[in-house]
Amino acid sequence: LTFDQIAPDGSQPAKARELHLIERPDGMPTPSQFNVVERELPPLEHGQILIRNRFLSIDPAMRPPLSNGLTPLNSPIMSLAIGEIVASRNTRFPVGQKVVHREGLRDLALSDGTHVDIVSVEDEPLHWHLGALGFTGFTAYAGLFDVARIKPGETVFVSAAAGAVGSVAAQIARLTGCRVIGSAGSADKCAWLRDKARLDQVVNYNEQPLRKSLKEAAPSGIDVYFDNVGGSHLDATLPRMRMHGRVAICGMISAYNNKGALSEGVTTLATMMYNRITMRAFIWQDHVTIWPQFLQAMRQWLANGDLVTEETIYHGLEKAPDALIALLSGKNLGKMLIQLD
Amino acid sequence: LTFDQIAPDGSQPAKARELHLIERPDGMPTPSQFNVVERELPPLEHGQILIRNRFLSIDPAMRPPLSNGLTPLNSPIMSLAIGEIVASRNTRFPVGQKVVHREGLRDLALSDGTHVDIVSVEDEPLHWHLGALGFTGFTAYAGLFDVARIKPGETVFVSAAAGAVGSVAAQIARLTGCRVIGSAGSADKCAWLRDKARLDQVVNYNEQPLRKSLKEAAPSGIDVYFDNVGGSHLDATLPRMRMHGRVAICGMISAYNNKGALSEGVTTLATMMYNRITMRAFIWQDHVTIWPQFLQAMRQWLANGDLVTEETIYHGLEKAPDALIALLSGKNLGKMLIQLD
Repeated sequence: LTFDQIAPDGSQPAKARELHLIERPDGMPTPSQFNVVERELPPLEHGQILIRNRFLSIDPAMRPPLSNGLTPLNSPIMSLAIGEIVASRNTRFPVGQKVVHREGLRDLALSDGTHVDIVSVEDEPLHWHLGALGFTGFTAYAGLFDVARIKPGETVFVSAAAGAVGSVAAQIARLTGCRVIGSAGSADKCAWLRDKARLDQVVNYNEQPLRKSLKEAAPSGIDVYFDNVGGSHLDATLPRMRMHGRVAICGMISAYNNKGALSEGVTTLATMMYNRITMRAFIWQDHVTIWPQFLQAMRQWLANGDLVTEETIYHGLEKAPDALIALLSGKNLGKMLIQLD
Repeated sequence: LTFDQIAPDGSQPAKARELHLIERPDGMPTPSQFNVVERELPPLEHGQILIRNRFLSIDPAMRPPLSNGLTPLNSPIMSLAIGEIVASRNTRFPVGQKVVHREGLRDLALSDGTHVDIVSVEDEPLHWHLGALGFTGFTAYAGLFDVARIKPGETVFVSAAAGAVGSVAAQIARLTGCRVIGSAGSADKCAWLRDKARLDQVVNYNEQPLRKSLKEAAPSGIDVYFDNVGGSHLDATLPRMRMHGRVAICGMISAYNNKGALSEGVTTLATMMYNRITMRAFIWQDHVTIWPQFLQAMRQWLANGDLVTEETIYHGLEKAPDALIALLSGKNLGKMLIQLD
């Protein structure tokens, strides 16, 4: 049965391939802890839809649930995904409609429409709606404007600046008139940040201690730290923050493979006192009221070439564990995606 | 020359006794690092005043400047103080006026009026204007309402709850209709918090691990953490915070005696992500617009006996090092003061 043979009214069962977690990782996940499972989906009931996934988003935030119990064993792993409706018994979702939703890591998803968002795709690549034009870009936008409240002229430091959210955040800050410093862990990524993302300063944290690099790159301090890393990155950055500085905590990838997601100890928190620092962890879902203004601004930046996007794309559901492991090892440049062909 | 013999017009020199730092402490300060020095103050110039100090405030925040260089050696150590004008060549400050100012740790201070605030003392004890009715109480008030934005019904945890700011903060939270948990390190302090300050739950962090105590005291989590301690206290509390919880960082006394004011490593910061926690360090000076409403509310609470104050008072300038050391060792109940008789 191919996807094209699926009955648009969902009256027939359909076969889905799903990625299951079969063993909880302790530390860095290994491919053997995952398994691709074929499953028959029942005919649709009233209100249900079938979504054929085209791209699956691979994100650092997927890691903690694998260990903390939120991802059940022997069930499909959740991820954000973009696909199209191939069968529908729900008038909100006609067949052919492109949607972004949470039931990724499978090729075919049965849904009742909860948390399924209609996206209007113009002539941009489809996967941009998981990237710069989607929740990834929105996370950067919301973090900078709604959480950190950046202002032109401020110095902004973005960690993991060559990653999915970081690469967008760093460029938005530049386009807002901030002085932008980005960190990355390889010469290739640093070159991309300098030459393509056009940051003001790029620091390779594997080359010399971050604290020293930040002192050189921001001699008069940092107003806003957009943190994707946590742990030792945060420890090194806090003492460099200026009066009334803001730390927007978007992620703490350095901790996600550790037992209980414990980070390396952060010892410099008392510096928050001296400079009255605010640190705020956020997720984009708390900020959706500004999505329309985000979408308008981002389409403009992309259309003008002011903001460039980068993707690392793996092909096929079987490659999702490798993609996640590569992501957690910092091997991706830009957005990490699985394409289902 | 006694204070009564000082010429009210400041036309004669006067003798002041000042506490100087003579050696920078590395770790807990020792009395030998301080010295009382007698100094002749010159006749007043136009605009200057002489303040006779009555009470000196001894605060945790005085510790970091002793090591980080902000307090010069062989100069009087700054502290908040309350006193009265005994000579004046400044029309804003008539002789006899009570004032709160920053030039404590001396019996007589010469000032040009900068950072000198007139206080209107009714029939309450004078030292309350350094305590519940002064910047100590205001720190608690601003931290709870302007920083943490407590709401009735929320669960509030206050660390060092038997300390100067903590004891006021815990009671204000109770009076606001919050469920209040306080921590302290001795049975005496815990008894005071239960019986006098009437908190809902009191935990002795020397009795069992704080993390365990908080789990028992707040089984459904903590909305607001008013932190005076930092380090291991913060580490234990973050995982107990509820969704959209707020941490108001008022102080981090646990770090102040360490080299570079480095705290014990905080390893649980990634939990901020899961519950979208905001952590904000503040000082009262950033919130003075709400001082009038604070003063009105606090006078009422004190007058009604809804809020009780406690002081630990040492007598004489020579005792200031002992008082500071006792404070940093957690020996005080309530506000730590030096009375100059």
